[in-house]
Amino acid sequence: MATAGKVIKCKAAVAWEAGKPLSIEEVEVAPPQAMEVRVKILYTALCHTDVYFWEAKGQTPVFPRILGHEAGGIVESVGEGVTELVPGDHVLPVFTGECKDCAHCKSEESNLCDLLRINVDRGVMIGDGQSRFTIGGKPIFHFVGTSTFSEYTVIHVGCLAKINPEAPLDKVCVLSCGISTGLGATLNVAKPKKGSTVAIFGLGAVGLAAMEGAKMAGASRIIGVDLNPAKYEQAKKFGCTDFVNPKDHTKPVQEVLIEMTNGGVDRAVECTGHVDTMISAFECVHDGWGVAVLVGVPHKEAVFKTHPMNFLNERTLKGTFFGNYKPRTDLPEVVEMYMRKELDVEKFITHSVPFSQINTAFDLMLKGEGLRCVMRMDE
Amino acid sequence: MATAGKVIKCKAAVAWEAGKPLSIEEVEVAPPQAMEVRVKILYTALCHTDVYFWEAKGQTPVFPRILGHEAGGIVESVGEGVTELVPGDHVLPVFTGECKDCAHCKSEESNLCDLLRINVDRGVMIGDGQSRFTIGGKPIFHFVGTSTFSEYTVIHVGCLAKINPEAPLDKVCVLSCGISTGLGATLNVAKPKKGSTVAIFGLGAVGLAAMEGAKMAGASRIIGVDLNPAKYEQAKKFGCTDFVNPKDHTKPVQEVLIEMTNGGVDRAVECTGHVDTMISAFECVHDGWGVAVLVGVPHKEAVFKTHPMNFLNERTLKGTFFGNYKPRTDLPEVVEMYMRKELDVEKFITHSVPFSQINTAFDLMLKGEGLRCVMRMDE
Repeated sequence: MATAGKVIKCKAAVAWEAGKPLSIEEVEVAPPQAMEVRVKILYTALCHTDVYFWEAKGQTPVFPRILGHEAGGIVESVGEGVTELVPGDHVLPVFTGECKDCAHCKSEESNLCDLLRINVDRGVMIGDGQSRFTIGGKPIFHFVGTSTFSEYTVIHVGCLAKINPEAPLDKVCVLSCGISTGLGATLNVAKPKKGSTVAIFGLGAVGLAAMEGAKMAGASRIIGVDLNPAKYEQAKKFGCTDFVNPKDHTKPVQEVLIEMTNGGVDRAVECTGHVDTMISAFECVHDGWGVAVLVGVPHKEAVFKTHPMNFLNERTLKGTFFGNYKPRTDLPEVVEMYMRKELDVEKFITHSVPFSQINTAFDLMLKGEGLRCVMRMDE
Repeated sequence: MATAGKVIKCKAAVAWEAGKPLSIEEVEVAPPQAMEVRVKILYTALCHTDVYFWEAKGQTPVFPRILGHEAGGIVESVGEGVTELVPGDHVLPVFTGECKDCAHCKSEESNLCDLLRINVDRGVMIGDGQSRFTIGGKPIFHFVGTSTFSEYTVIHVGCLAKINPEAPLDKVCVLSCGISTGLGATLNVAKPKKGSTVAIFGLGAVGLAAMEGAKMAGASRIIGVDLNPAKYEQAKKFGCTDFVNPKDHTKPVQEVLIEMTNGGVDRAVECTGHVDTMISAFECVHDGWGVAVLVGVPHKEAVFKTHPMNFLNERTLKGTFFGNYKPRTDLPEVVEMYMRKELDVEKFITHSVPFSQINTAFDLMLKGEGLRCVMRMDE
């Protein structure tokens, strides 16, 4: 391509400081270095994690920064040593990577790549410790290796899943983070059997994706748990058969669920990140075979507490990260699930705005409206 | 048999009160009622649990009582409705049962039978709430449905595993509790892969059986953890390649293990029941794939505490009861493992005494000497 090897000037949404509206700026995007890929982003969605690090409450502030990590794009050019991707390939950027060389990547069970595991404090490329973004020569920091709130971005090859070029990027872009996280938590980790009872704690996009996984696995009873009663209507589209609002009960919600299910649910998936909810999710699973899976990221000082007999009575507690999907190996197959119409992605996309209106997407999320807002980069 | 349907007078070791030496008495053993079996015990071993309930510290005292639950015997007669066993069958009594009819028994995953799950406070048969043992007409209580410290005992059919009659009962009697508990915790629950690293916490008989399971599964590095350095020599016979005494280190033992193994062990099995050791066992497993299994029974007030990120980083914590073996379905196959020489049982049997010297067996266990002491009922 004509742009390969050259600096590209394009539009990006820059977060200059914590909590202040993003501003669309012209940025310079340097060419990809060794093992890096420059990607033209076509669609990017907003995820809670972007908002979380934009607010930077209790986090290391890394500004000015280009946020964004749920997206779909096309390879513009590749750096030295990149053999798996060529310009024109359709890709999903992922906030965590797969080097294919470390102990984790070589393990069948883990997706916690030693080299490219998510690092929220790092604002530079791992190859040379530099940013590829500048404005007037001054560096703008990256975010989780993706920085998709830019028409062009530079990403390590290990953080890009090459997908079916026929897949519509305005839809499958949302598979690069939250939806796969929830879906995989159920399909890959909780693994409910056909006809089983599954409880999902927290009915945001991740929780609803976990619920969709339970429905796909053939669960016959799917209990949604959320503090917001308005979530039930939406959740029904994802297979929710029963709804429990902990506020409606004086006893702990795990006791409510145990009574409702004659001893406990077969599987529970926790998507809120609140430690008390994690404890409820674990303690509501049936003895003998119950499995609880933690997805939501806890507070740094959180302590998980339970009586050890809850384990001894043959309950299992597991955590998962990105639904245990290996980004490069497994994500293309998640896209194929959509292509085969086994997975409905459209119902997660409740809003769509031009990239220039990115602050509208932030407002929607802050108000808790909708699930995913996809931004169209070419508008 | 000539004795069927009649009261049998025989010798039993009666615990008249907590902590006092047992006394060999002549007891009357009533015939088995519906779904019960009267068994002639040939060999019985002493397990910590017998000593624990004999001491009755912090337990409901149930005296006078006939303790004992690790044993091998032969069916003398059967009660109404018993079709699976006939006089002459060789059986292992088990402290927990399998009714084959409840949700747990019907589940592939659970062995926590609703009807016959261990109940340490009950001193009577579940059928009629009566004891089958008397001395001069006064009832003597049962223990965990087995009461094997008696030449004859009455047991619910669901708590008897029918085994290969060629299996030597003086050896396989120890498979009816501790050895299977440890072995199954590793083989059925932790499931270490060939070449993996396994840590075993607590090197008593259960821990050494868990270790034997790790060796059988092909673990290449087996780390024993115990406060008593003398345990290492014995543990070597069970495959122990490394030994860690927490007392030799100032840092938490989980950190020691993580350093020794470049990130953590693949599997850990906890056999002490101390909650701090449970936490160590969980926190020492490798992120991405590590599994910790709890076997030791905790104190009633114990609280398991850990940072939930330890789960989120893809660690699994499970508990097990009787090694996840279903007593009637699975125990005969454990005996077959011994018969095929895949499992070495002899090395667990460090002492053997005539039944009349049962208090010697208690003394040995209280001093921590040896692993299993088998008592010969006919002497």
